[in-house]
Amino acid sequence: MTEAEVRARVAAARVGHLATVRASGAPHLVPFCFVLDGELLYSAVDRKPKRTSRLLRLENAAAEPRVCVMVDHYEEDWSRLWWIRLDGRARELADGGEAAHALALLAAKYAQYRAAPPDGPVLRIDVERWRWWEAGGAPHEATHR
Amino acid sequence: MTEAEVRARVAAARVGHLATVRASGAPHLVPFCFVLDGELLYSAVDRKPKRTSRLLRLENAAAEPRVCVMVDHYEEDWSRLWWIRLDGRARELADGGEAAHALALLAAKYAQYRAAPPDGPVLRIDVERWRWWEAGGAPHEATHR
Repeated sequence: MTEAEVRARVAAARVGHLATVRASGAPHLVPFCFVLDGELLYSAVDRKPKRTSRLLRLENAAAEPRVCVMVDHYEEDWSRLWWIRLDGRARELADGGEAAHALALLAAKYAQYRAAPPDGPVLRIDVERWRWWEAGGAPHEATHR
Repeated sequence: MTEAEVRARVAAARVGHLATVRASGAPHLVPFCFVLDGELLYSAVDRKPKRTSRLLRLENAAAEPRVCVMVDHYEEDWSRLWWIRLDGRARELADGGEAAHALALLAAKYAQYRAAPPDGPVLRIDVERWRWWEAGGAPHEATHR
Protein backbone atom coordinates (compact mmCIF):
# COMPACT_ATOMS: atom_id res chain seq x y z
CA MET A 1 0.00 0.00 0.00
CA THR A 2 1.28 3.41 -0.90
CA GLU A 3 0.45 6.37 1.35
CA ALA A 4 -2.11 7.48 -1.25
CA GLU A 5 -3.77 4.06 -1.12
CA VAL A 6 -3.79 4.11 2.68
CA ARG A 7 -5.55 7.45 2.63
CA ALA A 8 -8.01 6.32 -0.04
CA ARG A 9 -8.92 3.20 1.92
CA VAL A 10 -9.54 5.15 5.11
CA ALA A 11 -11.58 7.75 3.23
CA ALA A 12 -13.69 5.04 1.59
CA ALA A 13 -14.19 2.86 4.68
CA ARG A 14 -17.85 2.67 5.69
CA VAL A 15 -17.10 1.70 9.27
CA GLY A 16 -14.13 1.77 11.59
CA HIS A 17 -13.43 0.94 15.21
CA LEU A 18 -12.64 3.51 17.85
CA ALA A 19 -10.82 2.70 21.07
CA THR A 20 -10.81 5.09 23.99
CA VAL A 21 -9.69 4.68 27.58
CA ARG A 22 -12.17 4.73 30.44
CA ALA A 23 -11.66 6.71 33.64
CA SER A 24 -10.84 3.35 35.28
CA GLY A 25 -7.94 2.88 32.86
CA ALA A 26 -9.62 0.01 30.98
CA PRO A 27 -10.04 0.28 27.22
CA HIS A 28 -13.41 0.85 25.55
CA LEU A 29 -14.34 0.03 21.98
CA VAL A 30 -17.10 0.97 19.54
CA PRO A 31 -17.71 0.55 15.83
CA PHE A 32 -18.26 3.96 14.28
CA CYS A 33 -18.97 5.81 11.05
CA PHE A 34 -16.65 8.67 10.24
CA VAL A 35 -15.33 10.91 7.53
CA LEU A 36 -11.69 11.72 6.77
CA ASP A 37 -10.85 15.37 6.15
CA GLY A 38 -7.13 15.84 5.66
CA GLU A 39 -5.53 14.87 8.95
CA LEU A 40 -8.85 14.94 10.78
CA LEU A 41 -11.57 12.37 11.33
CA TYR A 42 -15.05 13.47 12.21
CA SER A 43 -17.83 11.36 13.61
CA ALA A 44 -21.21 12.16 15.08
CA VAL A 45 -23.40 10.44 17.56
CA ASP A 46 -27.12 9.99 17.60
CA ARG A 47 -29.03 11.13 20.61
CA LYS A 48 -31.34 8.13 20.18
CA PRO A 49 -30.97 4.67 21.75
CA LYS A 50 -27.44 3.74 22.84
CA ARG A 51 -27.21 6.59 25.25
CA THR A 52 -24.75 5.13 27.73
CA SER A 53 -22.26 3.91 25.18
CA ARG A 54 -22.31 7.15 23.26
CA LEU A 55 -21.81 9.32 26.27
CA LEU A 56 -19.02 7.08 27.48
CA ARG A 57 -17.06 7.59 24.28
CA LEU A 58 -17.24 11.36 24.66
CA GLU A 59 -16.61 11.24 28.38
CA ASN A 60 -13.55 9.06 27.87
CA ALA A 61 -12.12 11.37 25.24
CA ALA A 62 -12.68 14.39 27.46
CA ALA A 63 -10.54 12.84 30.21
CA GLU A 64 -8.03 11.02 27.97
CA PRO A 65 -7.92 12.46 24.47
CA ARG A 66 -5.61 9.78 23.08
CA VAL A 67 -7.64 7.41 20.93
CA CYS A 68 -6.94 4.68 18.42
CA VAL A 69 -8.88 4.08 15.21
CA MET A 70 -8.71 0.89 13.16
CA VAL A 71 -9.83 0.48 9.56
CA ASP A 72 -9.35 -3.05 8.32
CA HIS A 73 -10.36 -5.68 5.84
CA TYR A 74 -11.18 -9.29 6.63
CA GLU A 75 -11.81 -12.10 4.22
CA GLU A 76 -11.24 -15.83 4.34
CA ASP A 77 -8.25 -15.57 2.03
CA TRP A 78 -5.78 -14.41 4.63
CA SER A 79 -3.27 -13.39 1.98
CA ARG A 80 -5.59 -10.43 1.35
CA LEU A 81 -5.88 -9.07 4.88
CA TRP A 82 -4.90 -5.52 5.67
CA TRP A 83 -5.33 -2.96 8.39
CA ILE A 84 -4.66 0.71 8.94
CA ARG A 85 -4.29 2.10 12.44
CA LEU A 86 -4.61 5.78 13.24
CA ASP A 87 -3.48 7.16 16.58
CA GLY A 88 -4.72 10.58 17.46
CA ARG A 89 -6.36 12.92 19.88
CA ALA A 90 -10.10 13.36 20.15
CA ARG A 91 -12.26 16.16 21.37
CA GLU A 92 -15.93 17.01 21.22
CA LEU A 93 -16.75 20.05 19.10
CA ALA A 94 -19.01 22.77 20.34
CA ASP A 95 -21.82 23.61 17.96
CA GLY A 96 -20.59 26.03 15.33
CA GLY A 97 -18.96 26.28 11.95
CA GLU A 98 -16.62 23.33 12.28
CA ALA A 99 -19.35 21.02 13.58
CA ALA A 100 -21.60 22.08 10.71
CA HIS A 101 -18.76 21.41 8.24
CA ALA A 102 -18.25 17.94 9.75
CA LEU A 103 -21.95 17.13 9.56
CA ALA A 104 -22.01 18.22 5.92
CA LEU A 105 -19.08 15.91 5.14
CA LEU A 106 -20.78 13.05 6.96
CA ALA A 107 -24.00 13.65 5.05
CA ALA A 108 -22.07 13.71 1.77
CA LYS A 109 -20.49 10.33 2.57
CA TYR A 110 -23.48 8.58 4.15
CA ALA A 111 -26.94 8.60 2.56
CA GLN A 112 -28.16 7.33 5.94
CA TYR A 113 -27.17 10.64 7.52
CA ARG A 114 -28.89 12.57 4.75
CA ALA A 115 -32.09 10.66 5.54
CA ALA A 116 -31.71 11.10 9.31
CA PRO A 117 -29.12 13.70 10.34
CA PRO A 118 -27.35 12.86 13.60
CA ASP A 119 -28.42 15.19 16.34
CA GLY A 120 -25.67 14.48 18.83
CA PRO A 121 -22.29 16.13 19.25
CA VAL A 122 -19.44 15.82 16.74
CA LEU A 123 -16.18 14.18 17.75
CA ARG A 124 -13.03 15.45 16.05
CA ILE A 125 -9.91 13.30 15.96
CA ASP A 126 -6.57 14.87 15.06
CA VAL A 127 -4.59 12.03 13.49
CA GLU A 128 -0.98 12.04 14.63
CA ARG A 129 0.26 8.69 13.38
CA TRP A 130 -0.72 6.38 10.56
CA ARG A 131 0.41 2.80 10.69
CA TRP A 132 -0.59 0.08 8.27
CA TRP A 133 0.01 -3.50 7.39
CA GLU A 134 -1.01 -5.91 4.68
CA ALA A 135 -0.53 -9.65 4.46
CA GLY A 136 2.87 -10.50 3.12
CA GLY A 137 4.25 -7.04 3.82
CA ALA A 138 6.12 -5.45 6.67
CA PRO A 139 4.41 -2.83 8.85
CA HIS A 140 4.65 0.75 7.60
CA GLU A 141 4.37 3.96 9.45
CA ALA A 142 3.95 7.65 8.84
CA THR A 143 3.93 10.18 11.60
CA HIS A 144 2.49 13.61 11.15
CA ARG A 145 3.24 16.60 13.32
CA MET B 1 -30.86 -10.73 20.80
CA THR B 2 -31.20 -13.32 23.50
CA GLU B 3 -28.14 -14.30 25.53
CA ALA B 4 -27.96 -17.53 23.52
CA GLU B 5 -27.90 -15.53 20.27
CA VAL B 6 -25.24 -13.23 21.65
CA ARG B 7 -23.07 -16.20 22.49
CA ALA B 8 -23.72 -17.84 19.11
CA ARG B 9 -22.77 -14.68 17.23
CA VAL B 10 -19.51 -14.29 19.15
CA ALA B 11 -18.69 -17.98 18.67
CA ALA B 12 -19.36 -17.75 14.93
CA ALA B 13 -17.58 -14.42 14.33
CA ARG B 14 -14.60 -14.82 12.00
CA VAL B 15 -12.89 -11.67 13.20
CA GLY B 16 -13.13 -9.33 16.15
CA HIS B 17 -11.32 -6.26 17.41
CA LEU B 18 -9.15 -6.23 20.50
CA ALA B 19 -8.33 -3.06 22.42
CA THR B 20 -5.51 -2.97 24.95
CA VAL B 21 -3.86 -0.09 26.75
CA ARG B 22 -0.25 0.85 26.07
CA ALA B 23 2.27 1.57 28.78
CA SER B 24 1.84 5.25 27.86
CA GLY B 25 -1.84 5.03 28.74
CA ALA B 26 -3.01 5.38 25.12
CA PRO B 27 -5.29 2.71 23.64
CA HIS B 28 -4.10 0.22 21.05
CA LEU B 29 -6.29 -1.71 18.62
CA VAL B 30 -5.92 -4.78 16.41
CA PRO B 31 -8.28 -6.96 14.40
CA PHE B 32 -7.91 -10.56 15.57
CA CYS B 33 -9.13 -14.10 15.08
CA PHE B 34 -10.26 -15.92 18.18
CA VAL B 35 -12.29 -18.78 19.52
CA LEU B 36 -14.89 -18.67 22.30
CA ASP B 37 -14.69 -21.41 24.93
CA GLY B 38 -17.26 -20.86 27.66
CA GLU B 39 -16.28 -17.58 29.35
CA LEU B 40 -12.86 -17.58 27.71
CA LEU B 41 -11.57 -16.26 24.42
CA TYR B 42 -8.38 -17.64 23.00
CA SER B 43 -6.29 -16.14 20.22
CA ALA B 44 -2.85 -16.89 18.88
CA VAL B 45 -0.25 -14.81 17.14
CA ASP B 46 2.05 -15.68 14.29
CA ARG B 47 5.73 -15.24 14.77
CA LYS B 48 5.99 -14.07 11.16
CA PRO B 49 5.71 -10.52 9.83
CA LYS B 50 3.91 -8.08 12.11
CA ARG B 51 6.39 -8.54 14.89
CA THR B 52 6.05 -5.17 16.59
CA SER B 53 2.29 -5.05 16.68
CA ARG B 54 2.00 -8.59 17.93
CA LEU B 55 4.49 -8.13 20.70
CA LEU B 56 2.83 -4.88 21.68
CA ARG B 57 -0.51 -6.59 22.22
CA LEU B 58 1.06 -9.12 24.58
CA GLU B 59 3.24 -6.53 26.26
CA ASN B 60 0.24 -4.30 26.86
CA ALA B 61 -1.80 -7.14 28.37
CA ALA B 62 1.08 -8.10 30.64
CA ALA B 63 1.15 -4.60 32.13
CA GLU B 64 -2.61 -3.85 31.97
CA PRO B 65 -4.67 -7.04 31.71
CA ARG B 66 -7.97 -5.23 31.16
CA VAL B 67 -8.94 -5.50 27.50
CA CYS B 68 -12.04 -4.88 25.41
CA VAL B 69 -13.23 -7.05 22.54
CA MET B 70 -15.77 -5.99 19.94
CA VAL B 71 -17.72 -8.29 17.63
CA ASP B 72 -20.03 -6.38 15.34
CA HIS B 73 -21.94 -6.35 12.12
CA TYR B 74 -22.03 -3.54 9.59
CA GLU B 75 -24.19 -3.21 6.55
CA GLU B 76 -25.66 -0.29 4.68
CA ASP B 77 -29.12 -0.96 6.11
CA TRP B 78 -28.51 0.62 9.49
CA SER B 79 -31.63 -0.96 10.91
CA ARG B 80 -29.66 -4.22 10.92
CA LEU B 81 -26.55 -3.09 12.80
CA TRP B 82 -25.50 -4.84 15.98
CA TRP B 83 -22.49 -5.12 18.23
CA ILE B 84 -21.38 -7.19 21.17
CA ARG B 85 -18.72 -5.89 23.54
CA LEU B 86 -16.78 -8.13 25.88
CA ASP B 87 -14.74 -6.70 28.70
CA GLY B 88 -12.23 -9.00 30.28
CA ARG B 89 -8.72 -9.69 31.45
CA ALA B 90 -6.01 -11.05 29.20
CA ARG B 91 -2.87 -12.99 29.85
CA GLU B 92 -0.39 -14.87 27.76
CA LEU B 93 -0.38 -18.62 28.31
CA ALA B 94 2.82 -20.51 28.87
CA ASP B 95 3.21 -23.50 26.57
CA GLY B 96 1.35 -26.47 27.99
CA GLY B 97 -1.97 -28.21 28.09
CA GLU B 98 -4.19 -25.14 28.01
CA ALA B 99 -2.26 -23.56 25.14
CA ALA B 100 -2.48 -26.82 23.21
CA HIS B 101 -6.24 -26.94 23.90
CA ALA B 102 -6.62 -23.37 22.65
CA LEU B 103 -4.64 -24.09 19.48
CA ALA B 104 -6.80 -27.15 18.82
CA LEU B 105 -9.96 -25.04 19.15
CA LEU B 106 -8.52 -22.39 16.85
CA ALA B 107 -7.60 -25.05 14.28
CA ALA B 108 -11.11 -26.51 14.51
CA LYS B 109 -12.63 -23.09 13.81
CA TYR B 110 -10.17 -21.81 11.17
CA ALA B 111 -9.08 -23.92 8.21
CA GLN B 112 -6.34 -21.31 7.77
CA TYR B 113 -4.81 -22.38 11.09
CA ARG B 114 -5.03 -26.03 10.09
CA ALA B 115 -3.03 -25.20 6.95
CA ALA B 116 -0.50 -23.08 8.83
CA PRO B 117 -0.62 -23.46 12.63
CA PRO B 118 0.28 -20.26 14.49
CA ASP B 119 3.65 -20.57 16.14
CA GLY B 120 3.38 -17.65 18.53
CA PRO B 121 2.03 -17.50 22.08
CA VAL B 122 -1.64 -17.90 22.97
CA LEU B 123 -3.54 -15.05 24.59
CA ARG B 124 -6.34 -16.02 26.99
CA ILE B 125 -9.09 -13.52 27.81
CA ASP B 126 -11.35 -14.15 30.78
CA VAL B 127 -14.62 -12.46 29.86
CA GLU B 128 -16.13 -10.59 32.79
CA ARG B 129 -18.85 -8.56 31.13
CA TRP B 130 -20.96 -8.98 28.01
CA ARG B 131 -22.72 -5.98 26.63
CA TRP B 132 -24.68 -5.85 23.40
CA TRP B 133 -26.80 -3.63 21.28
CA GLU B 134 -28.81 -3.93 18.11
CA ALA B 135 -30.46 -1.24 16.04
CA GLY B 136 -33.83 -0.37 17.44
CA GLY B 137 -33.12 -1.97 20.77
CA ALA B 138 -31.82 -0.74 24.09
CA PRO B 139 -28.38 -1.81 25.30
CA HIS B 140 -28.26 -5.07 27.24
CA GLU B 141 -25.77 -6.30 29.68
CA ALA B 142 -24.75 -9.48 31.46
CA THR B 143 -21.98 -9.57 34.00
CA HIS B 144 -20.26 -12.77 34.99
CA ARG B 145 -18.29 -13.29 38.19
